[in-house]
Amino acid sequence: MRITDIRHVSAPLASEMSNAFISFKTMTTNVVAVETDVVRDGERVTGYGFSSNGRYAQPGLLASRFLPRLREADPASLLDETGENVDPQAIWRTLMANEKPGGHGERSFCIGALDMAVWDLHAKLAGRPLWTILSERYNGGRYDEAVLVYPGGGYYRADKDIEQLVAEMHGYRDAGYRICKMKVGGLPLADDLKRIEAAAEALGSGETLAVDANGRFALGEAIAFANAVEPFRLAWFEEPGDPLDYHLNAELVRHYPHAIATGENLFSHQDMNNLLRFGGLRPEIDWAQPDPSLCYGLTETLVMLDEAERLGWSRRRFLPHGGHQLGLNMAAGLQLGGTESYPGVFAPYGGFADDIPIVDGHVTLPRDQPGIGMELKPALMDEMRKRLELD
Amino acid sequence: MRITDIRHVSAPLASEMSNAFISFKTMTTNVVAVETDVVRDGERVTGYGFSSNGRYAQPGLLASRFLPRLREADPASLLDETGENVDPQAIWRTLMANEKPGGHGERSFCIGALDMAVWDLHAKLAGRPLWTILSERYNGGRYDEAVLVYPGGGYYRADKDIEQLVAEMHGYRDAGYRICKMKVGGLPLADDLKRIEAAAEALGSGETLAVDANGRFALGEAIAFANAVEPFRLAWFEEPGDPLDYHLNAELVRHYPHAIATGENLFSHQDMNNLLRFGGLRPEIDWAQPDPSLCYGLTETLVMLDEAERLGWSRRRFLPHGGHQLGLNMAAGLQLGGTESYPGVFAPYGGFADDIPIVDGHVTLPRDQPGIGMELKPALMDEMRKRLELD
Repeated sequence: MRITDIRHVSAPLASEMSNAFISFKTMTTNVVAVETDVVRDGERVTGYGFSSNGRYAQPGLLASRFLPRLREADPASLLDETGENVDPQAIWRTLMANEKPGGHGERSFCIGALDMAVWDLHAKLAGRPLWTILSERYNGGRYDEAVLVYPGGGYYRADKDIEQLVAEMHGYRDAGYRICKMKVGGLPLADDLKRIEAAAEALGSGETLAVDANGRFALGEAIAFANAVEPFRLAWFEEPGDPLDYHLNAELVRHYPHAIATGENLFSHQDMNNLLRFGGLRPEIDWAQPDPSLCYGLTETLVMLDEAERLGWSRRRFLPHGGHQLGLNMAAGLQLGGTESYPGVFAPYGGFADDIPIVDGHVTLPRDQPGIGMELKPALMDEMRKRLELD
Repeated sequence: MRITDIRHVSAPLASEMSNAFISFKTMTTNVVAVETDVVRDGERVTGYGFSSNGRYAQPGLLASRFLPRLREADPASLLDETGENVDPQAIWRTLMANEKPGGHGERSFCIGALDMAVWDLHAKLAGRPLWTILSERYNGGRYDEAVLVYPGGGYYRADKDIEQLVAEMHGYRDAGYRICKMKVGGLPLADDLKRIEAAAEALGSGETLAVDANGRFALGEAIAFANAVEPFRLAWFEEPGDPLDYHLNAELVRHYPHAIATGENLFSHQDMNNLLRFGGLRPEIDWAQPDPSLCYGLTETLVMLDEAERLGWSRRRFLPHGGHQLGLNMAAGLQLGGTESYPGVFAPYGGFADDIPIVDGHVTLPRDQPGIGMELKPALMDEMRKRLELD
């Protein structure tokens, strides 16, 4: 087999939402398809990938820098030992040849989308769901039947009041979610506290509400916020300050006994190592949340998880950011702590298979769909194929 | 006055050289021109900028994401209080609106090139050399008459033997340089030691040779290398390991009494803060080497220097990477420790004004040329204007 074409496009992912740091009015994302000369059931076997929300697209980097390296490589060097499937790690190494170390942003997003497409293709050519391959190859055959998922919601919107926030949280509970997340840090503390109190009441007791400041707070503000929300016994307090301010994190945990979660804006194993070494996070309480679609893909995230284990961190403390099916496959096959979910936002990229039931905050995974499972989400497939001009 | 056009292009910067990490065979860089409606001496006042070597160009990011933000901004919001000059900080904030924190790479390179052009324009409209503005505005009017410069050379090339390396070092000494730098880490230790011994002998005594491993070594290798080169009393040992591996640095300095230098692959003040907090560097011995053209420009580098001072680091311990005239202006006007120089490589972007004399390892700066001084380097101006189709 061989790769016949790699298509890519910058697709719109715009919305009227905002978090404490940015508006999503002009958001875009990378969409990638890796086509092959293999035909099954009358269809060309193709892998699909995208970057999750929040960091824009990098079409120029793919076109001018990364795809030429694949085109110029010996096609056989991109295949695994069977010669009948792509080797995701070999492709990743080829993409990253002659790249200097450090500076992990942007290139990590477009390579993340491409790497997702390569793993989707790899699993499809193997005729298996990706999570079963991850389980077998990287987790001794173990896997989770059901994966904890939580909606990343509660965004700010100009016309959204507390009543609507409460209705959103009720909707998540009615859909089967147990832990739900809301945005904070975009309003004065007193106003945010009213929102938090209402959402917490809507969700009921038992560490069911998580809050996400999207890196907005300076240290003093983060401590003030932490003190104010301590009585709510939140599931976690996410991204209190700048994602690279490990000192802030280390100071904050001295003032806050409950869980902190962060890591969605760290895009390499080197950055994650630094968070775990210097950020003061407690391996028995806190959470790491890398986004595999943004941090150079599953390939790099596997390295990240291995390095974290060497630093004493169980995979169970990892909750992939981004609400996509790649995170879900990883959580099941590698037995992570769970993964984010976007039932209501970033459509059609956010969210899982259309008919996947959520039971007591957990989902099971399809057993028969080869690849990542994006074909079980027809609106996503339609959008990606339309943007890529594949129809 | 107003900005009438911003041109940008990905320009080739290819060569047959390599360091311990990458080849430069397909290297490119960002070139930017900011044009205005102001005409002086019959010429349209235009600011020029570029990214220094090693990290490729990002034309798609400028075109699709950053320049639209400037076009959509109220033109008056981009001017300083006089209304007759651009405000580099206001332009920077406009460029970075709706950008998430973290992920400092790629976007920092193209914004660095654009920010260089904006500061060049700002100084030209003020009719003054940039270094005098920096001195007045950020350094209480103090400046250095002469700036320490050192050539970043001694690259690997397939056909280059020790004799040629020695000739290169003699050439630098004959040109007036005192400290010279060579690449290491690309050959087995025993072979590199032969190169180092020959270069050190060529340069003579007195901490005149610096070596640069470009992030190649793991901790054990870095310690072995440090032990082997300790007798040479090097000026510094640069980028021993991965630029983000602060733990490696902190361990290494426990084994090496002489100077370490690093930081060219850290692209934000947050990353530099982490190096200074967690990297074990000694403010009285070691060196920090950010590249202003790669780390979001002079604007962000000014923040970086302020934050470093709060952490107890004198500006004198900063040696800007990149061998460009922006680093030279900063070193003079802000009284940094010096700056890198590329007399022989990365032409025409590397190097300073054509006729600038090097005396005992120091250069003086032109007093009359408004802006950064790129017009004193005609080959650079010709190349940039040709690539930008400005002639």
